[in-house]
Amino acid sequence: SRSIDLAVIPGDGIGREVVAQGLKVLSAVLPQDAKLQTREYDLGAKRWHATGETLPDAELERLKGHDAILLGAIGDPSVPSGVLERGLLLKLRFAFDHYVNLRPSKLFPNTATPLEGRPDIDFVVVREGTEGPYTGNGGSLRTGTPAEVATEVSVNTAYGVERVVRDAYERAKARPRRKLTLVHKNNVLVHAGHLWKNIFDRVGEEYPEVTTDYLHVDAATIFFVTQPERFDVIVTDNLFGDILTDLAAAVTGGIGLAASGNINPTGAFPSMFEPVHGSAPDIAGTGKADPTATILSVALMLRHLGLDPEAARIEDAVSADLAERSAARARTTDEIGDALAARVAG
Amino acid sequence: SRSIDLAVIPGDGIGREVVAQGLKVLSAVLPQDAKLQTREYDLGAKRWHATGETLPDAELERLKGHDAILLGAIGDPSVPSGVLERGLLLKLRFAFDHYVNLRPSKLFPNTATPLEGRPDIDFVVVREGTEGPYTGNGGSLRTGTPAEVATEVSVNTAYGVERVVRDAYERAKARPRRKLTLVHKNNVLVHAGHLWKNIFDRVGEEYPEVTTDYLHVDAATIFFVTQPERFDVIVTDNLFGDILTDLAAAVTGGIGLAASGNINPTGAFPSMFEPVHGSAPDIAGTGKADPTATILSVALMLRHLGLDPEAARIEDAVSADLAERSAARARTTDEIGDALAARVAG
Ligand SMILES: CC(C)[C@H](C(=O)O)[C@@H](O)C(=O)O
Ligand SMILES: CC(C)[C@H](C(=O)O)[C@@H](O)C(=O)O
Repeated sequence: SRSIDLAVIPGDGIGREVVAQGLKVLSAVLPQDAKLQTREYDLGAKRWHATGETLPDAELERLKGHDAILLGAIGDPSVPSGVLERGLLLKLRFAFDHYVNLRPSKLFPNTATPLEGRPDIDFVVVREGTEGPYTGNGGSLRTGTPAEVATEVSVNTAYGVERVVRDAYERAKARPRRKLTLVHKNNVLVHAGHLWKNIFDRVGEEYPEVTTDYLHVDAATIFFVTQPERFDVIVTDNLFGDILTDLAAAVTGGIGLAASGNINPTGAFPSMFEPVHGSAPDIAGTGKADPTATILSVALMLRHLGLDPEAARIEDAVSADLAERSAARARTTDEIGDALAARVAG
Repeated sequence: SRSIDLAVIPGDGIGREVVAQGLKVLSAVLPQDAKLQTREYDLGAKRWHATGETLPDAELERLKGHDAILLGAIGDPSVPSGVLERGLLLKLRFAFDHYVNLRPSKLFPNTATPLEGRPDIDFVVVREGTEGPYTGNGGSLRTGTPAEVATEVSVNTAYGVERVVRDAYERAKARPRRKLTLVHKNNVLVHAGHLWKNIFDRVGEEYPEVTTDYLHVDAATIFFVTQPERFDVIVTDNLFGDILTDLAAAVTGGIGLAASGNINPTGAFPSMFEPVHGSAPDIAGTGKADPTATILSVALMLRHLGLDPEAARIEDAVSADLAERSAARARTTDEIGDALAARVAG
């Protein structure tokens, strides 16, 4: 019998609502004899306002002990931009060495896409999660004066790039089309770009069965809207991955459906699963939030924990639910959660 | 009577073909008494292979003397990535302090867009052109070893940000909708992001008639495909601008139509006009290249030189030509140039 010891960080805005539905579906899909234990962590805007803390060391230490983390959303307009993102969300990704930020994009039947002709979209972005322009290196000099200089340093290491590139090749190898595209901007960011490209090429020699391709990030955005069917697995840096996966979500039904996993493949630290969307304070409490992205993130979590059949049951349920969704009647957050819980239990 | 002393850099691949059409339309649109003088510069892959030079100082000095520069495209697979981009194209943008990289996006009638419902798209991206991650700062240590570290430094100054933000406000003020959106990623790139946001807000106080808005770059890509009509003028950094304008081109008929101006608004150095697309070596010499982006770049050049009526004649000609383009019969590069030259002359 399996047991899952799960940390839950509802966070801000719609975070709590969507996480509740994720847990509902998780309970419904687990086998009778599985033990699910959850512990909620009060982190986010409210905590920061009350105590000034974003992620105290003691909480970080406690989080370490769980099998996985389910996170809703972080961020609120009442908190200065960057405080919670850097102090909580990115701190978790970095502290737990989530070097594979996994973001699948699939256009389910019957979901709206802004693209004409409904192209066949089914790819996965493997976004590096612990380096690049996200390291917090940089600073500012003469801040607030007309002589200010502000820098942001993208840090890239062979160590960090090779492990994520290798992970991406493994994922590409396991998929039917076996294609891996590196996205970077090596004609301008020559130092980082060449590091990525050289490692991509060298590791590729170990994967002769995987077809490879390189695209500059600007060109990649064009193909995302004109030829998204060309992509299978994409590997890219932290910032390019951030940009591309929002665009990918937009063309595959919107961020209401986009799931993600911040994965530490070694198992040294718990991996963290969260919808790609933000806290959407404007619709918090209205019942308008779509919990599907969180529920699909739960599926990614189950797969990561080795519960593949349960993960597949959730994905199939979402697929079937979307096929029957009616444009005429929008359901509430709760109703969607109930419908999916019923399907996976059934 | 007006005279234009124009430097022409055909460059690589389809560059020569599209530039020829740009010049054809330019000659046709100029008033009888205008004097057009052109001087061609042999720069690009061929020159590099022959001499190892990308942009010798003497050529740079000579280029300085012209009223403007028309550039086709730079880049060839036979040259290592980055050599011509950094050594020629970016060198020109930096040496001539092209701090406003102007990229209009308009969905003309009868042009294909991958977006369903043909939204009303008519916005301008003011991309900063001389700072950000494009400065060439950074480097690599222990290159090619498993211990390699490669950095890219985004450099942002109050001086550089304020002048481009001010230019963007002026452009927004002159347009009917008077709306300006700042795109950055200030929740992660906090140093550069706060510099941009603070200057954007402060300068905005001088433009009470301009409505302002802020979007993270990832969210902006979503709106580019789901709600592009919300944009009027966008101001953003060098790299975000690079990415967003390719996406903008994709949703407004493709890079065959996307024009750009690398502008030094002070007039201290010649401004440079070029299509957003690259050298497309795969179709060079086939007559398949669409010269419209170059021809629209010529219009931007004429407007920059104060020849507004002539600029408008070109834009109207393109609009009329596109309205009559048939999906059934693709015209050659030359035929499109001829058709547009005939329209502007007529
Ligand atoms: C909230 C923000 C820090 C985060 C990121 O930039 O990674 C978000 O956009 C995401 O994609 O998960
Ligand atoms: C060729 C390359 C250096 C250039 C850039 O990144 O600016 C191009 O993509 C562009 O947008 O003009």
